[in-house]
Amino acid sequence: MILDISPCAAVSEARLQQRHDRLGAIGATPRGGVNRLALTATDATAQAMLVEWAIERGFRCSRDEIGNLYIRREGTDPGLDPVFMGSHLDTQPTGGRFDGAYGVLAGFEVLEALADLGRQTRRPVEVVAWTNEEGSRFQPGCMGSAAFTGVFPLDRLLAAKDHDGITVREALAAVDRATPLTSRPMASVRPAAYLEAHIEQGPRLESAGATIGVVNGIQGIRRLAVRLLGVEAHAGTTPRAVRRDAVSAAVAVIGALEALLHDAEDVVRFTVGRMEVAPNSPNTVPSRVDFSIDLRHPDAGMLRTLGDRIEAVACDTARTRRCTAEVTQVSHVPPTVFDDSTVSLVREATRTLGYPCLEMPSGAGHDAMYLSRICPTGMVFVPCLDGVSHNEAESATAADLAAGTRVLAAALVALADG
Amino acid sequence: MILDISPCAAVSEARLQQRHDRLGAIGATPRGGVNRLALTATDATAQAMLVEWAIERGFRCSRDEIGNLYIRREGTDPGLDPVFMGSHLDTQPTGGRFDGAYGVLAGFEVLEALADLGRQTRRPVEVVAWTNEEGSRFQPGCMGSAAFTGVFPLDRLLAAKDHDGITVREALAAVDRATPLTSRPMASVRPAAYLEAHIEQGPRLESAGATIGVVNGIQGIRRLAVRLLGVEAHAGTTPRAVRRDAVSAAVAVIGALEALLHDAEDVVRFTVGRMEVAPNSPNTVPSRVDFSIDLRHPDAGMLRTLGDRIEAVACDTARTRRCTAEVTQVSHVPPTVFDDSTVSLVREATRTLGYPCLEMPSGAGHDAMYLSRICPTGMVFVPCLDGVSHNEAESATAADLAAGTRVLAAALVALADG
Repeated sequence: MILDISPCAAVSEARLQQRHDRLGAIGATPRGGVNRLALTATDATAQAMLVEWAIERGFRCSRDEIGNLYIRREGTDPGLDPVFMGSHLDTQPTGGRFDGAYGVLAGFEVLEALADLGRQTRRPVEVVAWTNEEGSRFQPGCMGSAAFTGVFPLDRLLAAKDHDGITVREALAAVDRATPLTSRPMASVRPAAYLEAHIEQGPRLESAGATIGVVNGIQGIRRLAVRLLGVEAHAGTTPRAVRRDAVSAAVAVIGALEALLHDAEDVVRFTVGRMEVAPNSPNTVPSRVDFSIDLRHPDAGMLRTLGDRIEAVACDTARTRRCTAEVTQVSHVPPTVFDDSTVSLVREATRTLGYPCLEMPSGAGHDAMYLSRICPTGMVFVPCLDGVSHNEAESATAADLAAGTRVLAAALVALADG
Repeated sequence: MILDISPCAAVSEARLQQRHDRLGAIGATPRGGVNRLALTATDATAQAMLVEWAIERGFRCSRDEIGNLYIRREGTDPGLDPVFMGSHLDTQPTGGRFDGAYGVLAGFEVLEALADLGRQTRRPVEVVAWTNEEGSRFQPGCMGSAAFTGVFPLDRLLAAKDHDGITVREALAAVDRATPLTSRPMASVRPAAYLEAHIEQGPRLESAGATIGVVNGIQGIRRLAVRLLGVEAHAGTTPRAVRRDAVSAAVAVIGALEALLHDAEDVVRFTVGRMEVAPNSPNTVPSRVDFSIDLRHPDAGMLRTLGDRIEAVACDTARTRRCTAEVTQVSHVPPTVFDDSTVSLVREATRTLGYPCLEMPSGAGHDAMYLSRICPTGMVFVPCLDGVSHNEAESATAADLAAGTRVLAAALVALADG
């Protein structure tokens, strides 16, 4: 594969950093992070700034029914399906400057680099800012890409309410008034391919000394709820031998699950993040523990096999403490496997540009998960400091951000000319 | 030791049961339990009924500054210090019919049996209903006995407030108005000895097939608070090897402490009854776990040694999960050891009456703990169904309750004639 990497040289690290600084100022928090919840006035301000930059460069902007924002640079054959790049502008309430913003700005930087060079592409190229990826204000997250790809019906998503009872439909109308744009029905355009740049949100690239993560998919996730039932008893008078101590059972069950799910390769992600004890009194042997399981794996078969073993291990282990376990599956989303050709293209671009890289699944969910259902999809990861994300301390170097953008540019040009 | 067991035959199982039925009706709950919080109108009603019974039998009643209620049968030498029997009339909000009530009614039955027989004792004998043993409405518990024995200053206890801001002083004034009694300064009387009958509140007697527990003391208790600190991280992106997962650390620490505190004799009482996880979100590796430790042992040296080992084990184990542990001691109450002569007397009374018995420490705290600081003290336990207490389902057989009362009677007579 011979890639045209000439546009990569036009990617400007300084301009990209400046764009990040200006975008990060919208919703900036005192501790260096960003609070820019989806479809708020702050989000509208961010969109308005991006639109202003786009218009200065002669790109066309439009918005669809769920509020996804499109910035289009025309191709030499405008009738062809466009290639999409993008991510999201919304953040967690105590989010960082790079999660989402980077994917949008990297895409925009590629458009600018191409424009700077006067480099034409056969297909149109569009940068998309997907609506409400975080799911912090409205549930579910990845709302814009879910609507666009038909995963959830539009009407249901438009009816979702925030904590104040404001619907997506109402919030969207306010954003439309604040930054009016041409409206374009989402059904009118299908992407030929989708590329998303993102900070890794984990420590693997940093610890491997890699600049680029060639993302081959998004790991699957199963969520389970475990309830352990024992019998409440007096902490002072009840011998160990007759206790039915739900905390003791929980400790044994989680220990057994850690052993079950321990893999030398450290690929399995097993988290008990939530735990509630009842009656939660220091001098009462507890009768009930509820805890959550978040299990992730990039391989569908492994995720199924490992997840299916949990109930038996929990029940058998609980029984050794004279307690009972009830295991309920909350959700099971199988892994996303990105199209081979797109992953190869990102890998080749990275190699051609000479960046040390790691091929890896994404640990977190992204809009690319839904896009991959309708078109060849790839992602480019760059390291973030200490793997920290969803945190005001989130940080990434200008050099890494530019490197990821160059990889994006090389892959984009190949797709847009294909 | 030759004991006079003739008063034991006059103990009436039927009358004792009837008294329990009538007392249990005051504050009765729909599920068969009792809700009679200290110094409420319900508590006052219970006191009024007991006083009525006492007056019918010609016993004298008085109340002291903290509301302890005394029912006195005079001795042949009224100038001698009286022997006390007693327990408490207050209950947990969802308490049972026997916890506390039994000790008061058993003492009262002994007075009645002596009166029925016209049996004189050299010393006066008093039944005491100690104020607020449970500590459910006002803190601390065992308030009446604590004041009486000078463990806490009276003024501080009278100033304690319930959840509605009502002080003990105010609540006490209302009880005084409802059931006016002769007031007697607590400093004016010192007991020669104290005997308390109580349901075991644990399963040991029942499982050993014993009718009587000869209580040799009250185990000591140490309360500790453990805080485990890790680092919050994304559940999907953070490899196990770099996680600082506070729940995983808590599981390892509690497991290590269970191993440390495991004794073949099953004497150590180790309970983790309370646990709080932060941020307690299913898809976030938890950064903090707080949990309580309730450690009890009847031997002062063992309690000290075992408790002192906890911090090192917690810190070392937490370190294996890249977390830190902070261990704080909340309280350390050494074991109470009852006077040998009193324990021997209860043992001898039980043997003479031919009841199968078990010699044991009390797992729970009782007013006897404080009384033992100022006079020879003993306790008599009877079994309760399945060891259940602090529960509306609390239950004990009329035969066992009468057996305990007979043991109490035999020991009381020996002390009151001594």
